[in-house]
Amino acid sequence: MEAGKRDSRDESKRLIILKLGGSVITEKDAHSRFNRPLLEEIAQELSGIKSKLILVHGAGSFGHPIAKEYQIHQGYRDLNQLRGVTETKRSMLSLTMMITELLAERNVPVVPFLSSSCMIAKAGRLAKVDIGPFRMMLNLGLVPLCSGDVVADLKMGFCIVSGDQIAVHLAKKLKAKMVIFGCDVDGVFDSDPKKNPDASLIRVMTPKTLRKKMSILGESTATDVTKGMLGKIKESAPLVSRGGEVVILNLRKPQNLTRFLRGEDIPCTRFIPDSQKR
Amino acid sequence: MEAGKRDSRDESKRLIILKLGGSVITEKDAHSRFNRPLLEEIAQELSGIKSKLILVHGAGSFGHPIAKEYQIHQGYRDLNQLRGVTETKRSMLSLTMMITELLAERNVPVVPFLSSSCMIAKAGRLAKVDIGPFRMMLNLGLVPLCSGDVVADLKMGFCIVSGDQIAVHLAKKLKAKMVIFGCDVDGVFDSDPKKNPDASLIRVMTPKTLRKKMSILGESTATDVTKGMLGKIKESAPLVSRGGEVVILNLRKPQNLTRFLRGEDIPCTRFIPDSQKR
Repeated sequence: MEAGKRDSRDESKRLIILKLGGSVITEKDAHSRFNRPLLEEIAQELSGIKSKLILVHGAGSFGHPIAKEYQIHQGYRDLNQLRGVTETKRSMLSLTMMITELLAERNVPVVPFLSSSCMIAKAGRLAKVDIGPFRMMLNLGLVPLCSGDVVADLKMGFCIVSGDQIAVHLAKKLKAKMVIFGCDVDGVFDSDPKKNPDASLIRVMTPKTLRKKMSILGESTATDVTKGMLGKIKESAPLVSRGGEVVILNLRKPQNLTRFLRGEDIPCTRFIPDSQKR
Repeated sequence: MEAGKRDSRDESKRLIILKLGGSVITEKDAHSRFNRPLLEEIAQELSGIKSKLILVHGAGSFGHPIAKEYQIHQGYRDLNQLRGVTETKRSMLSLTMMITELLAERNVPVVPFLSSSCMIAKAGRLAKVDIGPFRMMLNLGLVPLCSGDVVADLKMGFCIVSGDQIAVHLAKKLKAKMVIFGCDVDGVFDSDPKKNPDASLIRVMTPKTLRKKMSILGESTATDVTKGMLGKIKESAPLVSRGGEVVILNLRKPQNLTRFLRGEDIPCTRFIPDSQKR
């Protein structure tokens, strides 16, 4: 029997959290360049989705270089970093603004959220998140859009909370059945596909099989790609253990999202509960 | 003895909430035009303020025309309004973005906040506000900037919460000693100064004297100016009764804010507790 077979079904009620990876929406090597043509395609796809939807976008080149310059990830150390906090937030806000504009033009009823307005972390992990406004906006039929952000931190003063962490946290709190990580690769591979032509895609993963795979993934943490993947998977494990599904798919391939949601068998990695793997 | 005399004093610790009126930061008659030269001057003044500071900006021509078109103030009535919610928020976000940029350039360590990310209303009044992130950002030395906004509403679905209401609410919750409403007039007049050359500025007002003035203010609600003033005063009354001070001053006059904070006797209206009027 095929492992984890999935049917197309009525999508109109369940909640999906879609992470728009920083590497998808920005040009990684260019400082603060937005991938407009790709996002236009994604917006077109999103306008056809009937599920309730929350979008979380990554920072890409709009966040990481500035945050690194001011060592924002280290937490508060000196006054000079405040400028860095402002600069990072200004840059991220401009990215959120561009995505909002573009989605609005494609009739996605988007509502921008600022993560730092409603989230507090403790040592880099989300500790207090006000989900009331998210829930109410969703129930009205709107599509909240937030991002990875510099967030106030009870231990560190401030910290960076990744879009990955936020996506999974919101899924837990709002009982979303599915988190989709939209990336620039097809999913999790058994070795780095950008280096090894024989790398093979792991199509289905469960908390049990993850433990076996961990040794393989752990070995290749030298590459950015795999590090990001390992982070997503680790972040997702508690959600999947509670019955959620996490999907990693390639958003750079046109119609991939739509095809996946229709139940088509596209190349991707599905991280599902052990009980669902038959 | 002069009524409500005020000394210049160490401003470094107390919290001031400054409302940047929509009529100050935008051109009222032009759709979505930002008053950049004026805001540059204000930013310059803000960079010299030593108090803790929260900024709340109004909507002006960036909010009211769109909100009116979609009847956002009426609350949720039909699906078509969702487009209006998105359009209003997109426009307001662009205004917040411009103010953030401009303040950051003048070295004001601003942190943009979205009111709708952390506030829930009930029948148009703020019912649940997550002030944790505001407090923590303030304590780091940052300057939160939020705005009047379309907010989720427990009774109406959504509603418009004015920057005035937000400013006073934050002052109460964060125990700010002072709210300053930056306007395009000098303060509250006994009749409309734009129509009556003999209108005289009310320099000091207390909850007690307000009751007497109410009849006068009530009579002239036909004018926008006075309506706005009446709203600010009514909104402020509970705060002042608890010992806070609310000031209405003209932000279109250069250096007015700085001079006021230095303790100079500029033309403005001060709304102070009865106990402070000597």
